[in-house]
Amino acid sequence: MAIGGAEDRTSDLAILKQVFALAPEGNSEVVVIAAASSIPGQILPVYRAAFERLGASRVHTLAMQDRRQAADPEAVRLIERSGVIFFTGGDQLHLTSAIGGSPVLEAIRQRSGAGAVVAGTSAGAAALPSTMIYGGAAEDALRKGAVHMASGLGLVSGLMIDSHFLNRGRFTRLMEAGASNPGQLGVGIGEDAAVIIHPNRVLEVIGSGHVIIIDSQKLASSNIAALSMGEPVAIENTIVHALISGHGFDIDARRYLVADELTAVLKEKEIP
Amino acid sequence: MAIGGAEDRTSDLAILKQVFALAPEGNSEVVVIAAASSIPGQILPVYRAAFERLGASRVHTLAMQDRRQAADPEAVRLIERSGVIFFTGGDQLHLTSAIGGSPVLEAIRQRSGAGAVVAGTSAGAAALPSTMIYGGAAEDALRKGAVHMASGLGLVSGLMIDSHFLNRGRFTRLMEAGASNPGQLGVGIGEDAAVIIHPNRVLEVIGSGHVIIIDSQKLASSNIAALSMGEPVAIENTIVHALISGHGFDIDARRYLVADELTAVLKEKEIP
Repeated sequence: MAIGGAEDRTSDLAILKQVFALAPEGNSEVVVIAAASSIPGQILPVYRAAFERLGASRVHTLAMQDRRQAADPEAVRLIERSGVIFFTGGDQLHLTSAIGGSPVLEAIRQRSGAGAVVAGTSAGAAALPSTMIYGGAAEDALRKGAVHMASGLGLVSGLMIDSHFLNRGRFTRLMEAGASNPGQLGVGIGEDAAVIIHPNRVLEVIGSGHVIIIDSQKLASSNIAALSMGEPVAIENTIVHALISGHGFDIDARRYLVADELTAVLKEKEIP
Repeated sequence: MAIGGAEDRTSDLAILKQVFALAPEGNSEVVVIAAASSIPGQILPVYRAAFERLGASRVHTLAMQDRRQAADPEAVRLIERSGVIFFTGGDQLHLTSAIGGSPVLEAIRQRSGAGAVVAGTSAGAAALPSTMIYGGAAEDALRKGAVHMASGLGLVSGLMIDSHFLNRGRFTRLMEAGASNPGQLGVGIGEDAAVIIHPNRVLEVIGSGHVIIIDSQKLASSNIAALSMGEPVAIENTIVHALISGHGFDIDARRYLVADELTAVLKEKEIP
């Protein structure tokens, strides 16, 4: 699950409640990883309190500020026990440079395959895909090279996630990223919104905000390959959707799902 | 012609030069109207100097701050003489409330039909169409009612113009406007960019910035009609294009024109 940032952590916990609700049957242990954050001592207690209020049997908090900590067998053991693995916000490069290629990331990948819920907010959401967006000011956007991309954690493929999307007007970042590789779906998550990516690769929107889908697969033309750095990028034919809570999107079929369709698709997958 | 705002007025005047170049043969008189501005005394001399540098035979400046001035026969006479009619930036409601339905606007409409170039920057661009966007914070965007629309000057139809588009991340404003009426094309003009709308309703981009086209005509679904004010708007299938200088768009055919296509289409119209 990817959260757009600024989710409520202290009052009704609407989004975190849904993270917790996705935990596998019989396992309500949560591990919170603050590798993206430079202030883990401030942020970890907030999430500990939130997940405890939600009924977690145990909450493990890991500051995980360097590669030594990302190789710590005790951290691996805590991840292997947990049904919910949560990445805080901060700086996505701080996160990937600490845990990329580490035993901790390998343990998370295995837990994800075995049914644990992996969630991240803000930078922790942006880092989940194979390719990660980590910077680029809105003012420079749609100039070749303005969007910075790097290899992400690889916990979900075929899409890129940008957070704080509406307030910071980040449409152009995902448009440029889509022009570079139209095969990658752009997922822009607004404040107090989140997406659940189900195992059948259907994306479900929750929260009171928006999720913007930027689909460049039908891109008709772009000049991006021919440009020098800093020159303005032309893009013909990007498809944009604005999704709200209860709506969904089939990532591989590139299909918008209104509430009824989403319900039907999610029921289907439950049939054994 | 509609200009995104912040165009260069003092050094190379790239965009204003193109405004001036569109003046009809043998008429290089310019009238600058500061009805949108609350500081006409500051802004008018800047444009006077710019158009004089470009070779205007005469530059008339009109503060036009109220309806009395918009009915002044002398102002009408100056407009009737001029080959270029230019609206400054400021507040678009200031502009429409002063000159809407006035003898001055009627004179501008007639001059436009007779081949004079009508141009506006920022608020002066936003006010040109029949429907005008005049407010709505990016943070509230895509919430029903967040975008404020009103009747514009009606000098161009079938589209809505938003300015300062990229720096202020205004995608959601035109998406919401398009969901309310998918027949209206959204034209978002970036800083130091402009569109020329030719008589055959082909739009041509000039300047070093971007023009974003938001085409809602193929909107597949939206909940906007069913919502209460402030609720989040869902939108399925908006088509977005990012155009740069030399690219164009056929407003009625809804067709993106790359540089070669634009050149061909603009040549066509010259054949008598």
